[in-house]
Amino acid sequence: MPQGQPEVVPDDGLTTRQRRNRPLLAVHTGSMKGKSTAAFGMALRAWNQGWSIGVFQFVKSAKWRVGEEAAFRALGESGAGGPVEWHKMGEGWSWSRKRGTEEDHAANAREGWAEIARRLAAERHDFYVLDEFTYPLHWGWLDVSEVVRTLRERPGRQHVVITGRYAPEELLDAADLVAELTKVKHPMDAGQKGQRGIEW
Amino acid sequence: MPQGQPEVVPDDGLTTRQRRNRPLLAVHTGSMKGKSTAAFGMALRAWNQGWSIGVFQFVKSAKWRVGEEAAFRALGESGAGGPVEWHKMGEGWSWSRKRGTEEDHAANAREGWAEIARRLAAERHDFYVLDEFTYPLHWGWLDVSEVVRTLRERPGRQHVVITGRYAPEELLDAADLVAELTKVKHPMDAGQKGQRGIEW
Repeated sequence: MPQGQPEVVPDDGLTTRQRRNRPLLAVHTGSMKGKSTAAFGMALRAWNQGWSIGVFQFVKSAKWRVGEEAAFRALGESGAGGPVEWHKMGEGWSWSRKRGTEEDHAANAREGWAEIARRLAAERHDFYVLDEFTYPLHWGWLDVSEVVRTLRERPGRQHVVITGRYAPEELLDAADLVAELTKVKHPMDAGQKGQRGIEW
Repeated sequence: MPQGQPEVVPDDGLTTRQRRNRPLLAVHTGSMKGKSTAAFGMALRAWNQGWSIGVFQFVKSAKWRVGEEAAFRALGESGAGGPVEWHKMGEGWSWSRKRGTEEDHAANAREGWAEIARRLAAERHDFYVLDEFTYPLHWGWLDVSEVVRTLRERPGRQHVVITGRYAPEELLDAADLVAELTKVKHPMDAGQKGQRGIEW
């Protein structure tokens, strides 16, 4: 909606341009699959702006998101848009020297977050996807207050999209955009199994 | 969820393999933006399977989805996944000789749907995105029953994802998957205007 007009003009002392350029913190939550799918759809637009994309997957299985990963690697390599980096916990973080030897998921998640915090401080990317990042927060592996403070205080113009169920209230409070995906009807209810090309 | 087990195994006489390979008709509806974003996210996985992707935009402005279009054109040209065709009503359908001369949106929509019906009959693509296709249905430009019958009776294994508000009940009844996007919090509520790289 390029020409969309907001219903309310806030009294925040910002110009329209400043407000337009405000970096977003978005959370995609709810019980339905598709939360990450929508985040990767957003990343297509960011890529087209030539923005640097950083994807950080906090999923347990490296089999997940293979389609999205292949597509974003191809986009990154095409040179037509922005560069793309893709890291996942399931295979050991790609910047970690401990690859494949660390079985402690909580420690992996803490290491992953520490790297993201360093990148935010350094303004390394323009658009971050923290995929399934709500789980290490929900499970108490990470300090929610510290994570939210780091996100709130991130410098520059870095957009962050976080996906997953059970997003903590404190994170939702800090978010500019919260989208909830609701299942109305799903083929798995009718006994259909997940299928290649559709689910992964 | 590659290893996901369905909760119910239906008594439909199909083998698991037949059920797994059943083509999907999905509808993304609801009042929030992100319906199309999620559809394009699904298309990334389809592309990675080497499937032929056909995108048909029933939007009024050709300015919409520029990011997604650029990304899918780059993916199609990369040769790493499936081929991609992208057609939009706003610029005249690319197979039409009337390009740029036809101002009647209803006639445009009918022409677009007729072409899609021909492609479905010919099994031209593996994965179709009919973007904002609910509007010409809602506005009475197309015969809902005829569209639903054509979709139900499409041959082979062609997946179809339809996006937009006000999806007719008859279409929802025919769909295998219906996802609704619900707005919990959106920056436009706080007076923020749409921004480049995020909204388009």
